[in-house]
Amino acid sequence: MEKVKIFGFGGSLRAGSFSKALLYAAKELAPAQAELEIFENLGAIPVFNQDQEKTPPAVVVDFKKKIKAADAILISTPEYNFSLPGFLKNAIDWASRPYGDNSFDDKPAAIMSASGSFMGGVKAQYALRQAMVFLNMHPLNKPEVIVPDAMDKIKDGQVTDPHTREKIKELLDTLVIWTKRLK
Amino acid sequence: MEKVKIFGFGGSLRAGSFSKALLYAAKELAPAQAELEIFENLGAIPVFNQDQEKTPPAVVVDFKKKIKAADAILISTPEYNFSLPGFLKNAIDWASRPYGDNSFDDKPAAIMSASGSFMGGVKAQYALRQAMVFLNMHPLNKPEVIVPDAMDKIKDGQVTDPHTREKIKELLDTLVIWTKRLK
Amino acid sequence: MEKVKIFGFGGSLRAGSFSKALLYAAKELAPAQAELEIFENLGAIPVFNQDQEKTPPAVVVDFKKKIKAADAILISTPEYNFSLPGFLKNAIDWASRPYGDNSFDDKPAAIMSASGSFMGGVKAQYALRQAMVFLNMHPLNKPEVIVPDAMDKIKDGQVTDPHTREKIKELLDTLVIWTKRLK
Amino acid sequence: MEKVKIFGFGGSLRAGSFSKALLYAAKELAPAQAELEIFENLGAIPVFNQDQEKTPPAVVVDFKKKIKAADAILISTPEYNFSLPGFLKNAIDWASRPYGDNSFDDKPAAIMSASGSFMGGVKAQYALRQAMVFLNMHPLNKPEVIVPDAMDKIKDGQVTDPHTREKIKELLDTLVIWTKRLK
Repeated sequence: MEKVKIFGFGGSLRAGSFSKALLYAAKELAPAQAELEIFENLGAIPVFNQDQEKTPPAVVVDFKKKIKAADAILISTPEYNFSLPGFLKNAIDWASRPYGDNSFDDKPAAIMSASGSFMGGVKAQYALRQAMVFLNMHPLNKPEVIVPDAMDKIKDGQVTDPHTREKIKELLDTLVIWTKRLK
Repeated sequence: MEKVKIFGFGGSLRAGSFSKALLYAAKELAPAQAELEIFENLGAIPVFNQDQEKTPPAVVVDFKKKIKAADAILISTPEYNFSLPGFLKNAIDWASRPYGDNSFDDKPAAIMSASGSFMGGVKAQYALRQAMVFLNMHPLNKPEVIVPDAMDKIKDGQVTDPHTREKIKELLDTLVIWTKRLK
Repeated sequence: MEKVKIFGFGGSLRAGSFSKALLYAAKELAPAQAELEIFENLGAIPVFNQDQEKTPPAVVVDFKKKIKAADAILISTPEYNFSLPGFLKNAIDWASRPYGDNSFDDKPAAIMSASGSFMGGVKAQYALRQAMVFLNMHPLNKPEVIVPDAMDKIKDGQVTDPHTREKIKELLDTLVIWTKRLK
Repeated sequence: MEKVKIFGFGGSLRAGSFSKALLYAAKELAPAQAELEIFENLGAIPVFNQDQEKTPPAVVVDFKKKIKAADAILISTPEYNFSLPGFLKNAIDWASRPYGDNSFDDKPAAIMSASGSFMGGVKAQYALRQAMVFLNMHPLNKPEVIVPDAMDKIKDGQVTDPHTREKIKELLDTLVIWTKRLK
C-alpha cells in the first residue's frame, strides 16, 4: 500500500528555531503508513513580485512541485508580531500563484506552532487558517499543537517534552486519517 | 507651526499596483498641516532572519529611521490569500526588531487597501490590525478606506474615482487630528 | 437513495431580515438530492448560563436534536459590530454544550451572510469560522456567499438578484458534494 | 480633582465565574484616582431584536446610561467556542444601537480574560478587539491580562495568584493614563 506523503515546511530561519524543531520531531514521530519530507530551503525564497510570478526562481519551482506531489501539508509557524512571519507568508504567496496554479488547492493540512511566550504562537495559527480558506486547504481542527514556553520543552533543536511529543504524534496520526477520508 | 510628519509605505511590488496608487493619492490629498513621505524601497528588503537582526541591511536601517522620525504611519496593503502580503509583513517584522527596538512603538496609524475583488482587501486590513496590537500602534477606527473593484477606480496609477479620493482625504484629515490628540 | 439532510438557521430576528431571506432562497434552490429544514425559533432561545446547561429549555433541546440529525449545517449570519450577532453566537453556544455533547461535532457546513453595507457581512463569516474550529465543523472554503448592498438584491424577503441566487445554488450543490465526500 | 470613572462588565453568568472574579479584583486594585463600577445585571438582558431597539428594556436603558457616563470601559470576557460568548456580545450589540446612538463611541477601554484552558481566552479577546473597531473604542494594546489555567489562580471568586493581581493592577494604572491622554 502507498504511503501517505506529507510535505512539511516552516520554522524560523534562525539557527535553533523552535518551530523548526517541531518539524524534525514530526518526522521522527510520523506513523509507519506516512512519510514526511521537510523543505530546508525557505530562506532562499526571495520576496514575491507579481510581475515575476510567471518565471519564478528555481527554488520556488521546486517548492511548488513538492507541494503538488504531496498528499498532505504540515506547516510549523513561529509567531512574529501576533501574526504569521512575513518570510513564511511570502513563501506561501509564491506557491499560490500565478492565478489558476495554486499548489495548495484541495490539500489536507495540519498546523503546529511554538514560541518562547506563554501563548505559543496561537495567533499565527489563526492568521494561517484564514489564508487557508482562500488557498482551499483543509486543515485539521484538532488536536492543537501549540507549544508555549518553548525554551523549556525544546533543547538543542530536540523536542524533549513528553506531552509535546505525544501531541505531535497525535497530530500526525489524525492527519493521516483525515487525508484518507478526503481521498 | 511644525507639520505633522506622516510616513507611508506599502503597495504591491508590481508595476501598476492599486494599493501603491492609494499612497500617491494620499500624498496629493494630505492637508496643508501635514507632509507625507512615501517609502519606495520595500522591494529591496530581503527576507528576515533573526540571526541577522542586529546587523540589518542598509535598506532596513533607512526604513527604521524614517518610521521613528515620523509622527504617524500610513500603510496601504494589498491582500494576498485573505491576509497581509508576505513581503509587506516581512518589512514590518524587520522594523519591529531587535527586541526593545520596535520602530513602530506608540505611533498613530492609518490603513488603506485596494484590490481587484469585490472585498477590497478588508481581510488584509484586519490581519494588519492584529499585528498592530503587538507593535503598540494606534490605528484609526474610521473612516475605512477599502477599495473594491479597483480596476474601475484606479487608472494608470491614478485614483480617479471621486468617492475614493474623498475617503482618502477624510482618512488623512482624521489621522492628523488623531496624531495631535495623542501627543 | 437517502437525501442529504441540511439543517439551516440564522438570520436576524427582525421582520424583513436579509440573512433570513438567504435561507429561504437556499430552501428553494437546494438540489433534488438534498432537503433543507430551516429553524424558525432562534428568537426563543434565552441567554446561556452554564449553571443551566444540563437542563436546557425545550427550545434548545429541539435545536440540538435537529442539528444532530442533520448531515450538514447551513448558517446564514448578519453582521453586528464587525462580528457575529450575539443572539446567534448564543444559540451556537447552547448547542455546543454541555462538555462532551457538542451537537455540531464533525458536521460539514456552509456559511452565507448579507448586509446593507458594501462589505456584506464578511467579518461575521470569519468570526464564525474561528468558532467552527473549536466546534469541529468542516465549513466549505468556497464559493463565497457574501451579499453586500442587500437592499438592492432582496425585496420583501425574496432574493431577487440573479447572481446572488446562482451563488446560493452553487453553495448548496457544493455542500452536498462535500458532505458525501466526508461520509 | 475628578476621579476617572471606569465602568466594568463581563464575566460568565455562572456562579464562580473566573472572568467575573477578574472584575472584582480590578475593583480592589484600581488606583486611587479611579473608581470602578461593575455591572451586575448582564444576565437580565434578553436577546437583541432590531425591531425592538427603539424601545429597549429597562435593563438595557440602565446599561447604556452607565456606559455613556463612564470615562473608560473595562470588559472581562470568558471564551466560548474560540470566540466571544454570545450573551456578552448580545449585551454589546444592544448598547451599540439604535444607529447613531452607540454608547461606546470614542471610549478608552481595557480587556481581560480568564479560562480553565491553557490559552486563557486569548481568542475571545481578539474577537472583541475586532468589534471594538466598529464600536469606535480605543482599547489598550498592553499589558495583556490573559489568565490561563484559571482554576489554579482564582479560588472562591478571589484572584489569589500574585502575578495575575499585579497584571490587573498594571492594566488599571495604564487605562487611567491612556484615558487622560485621550481627553
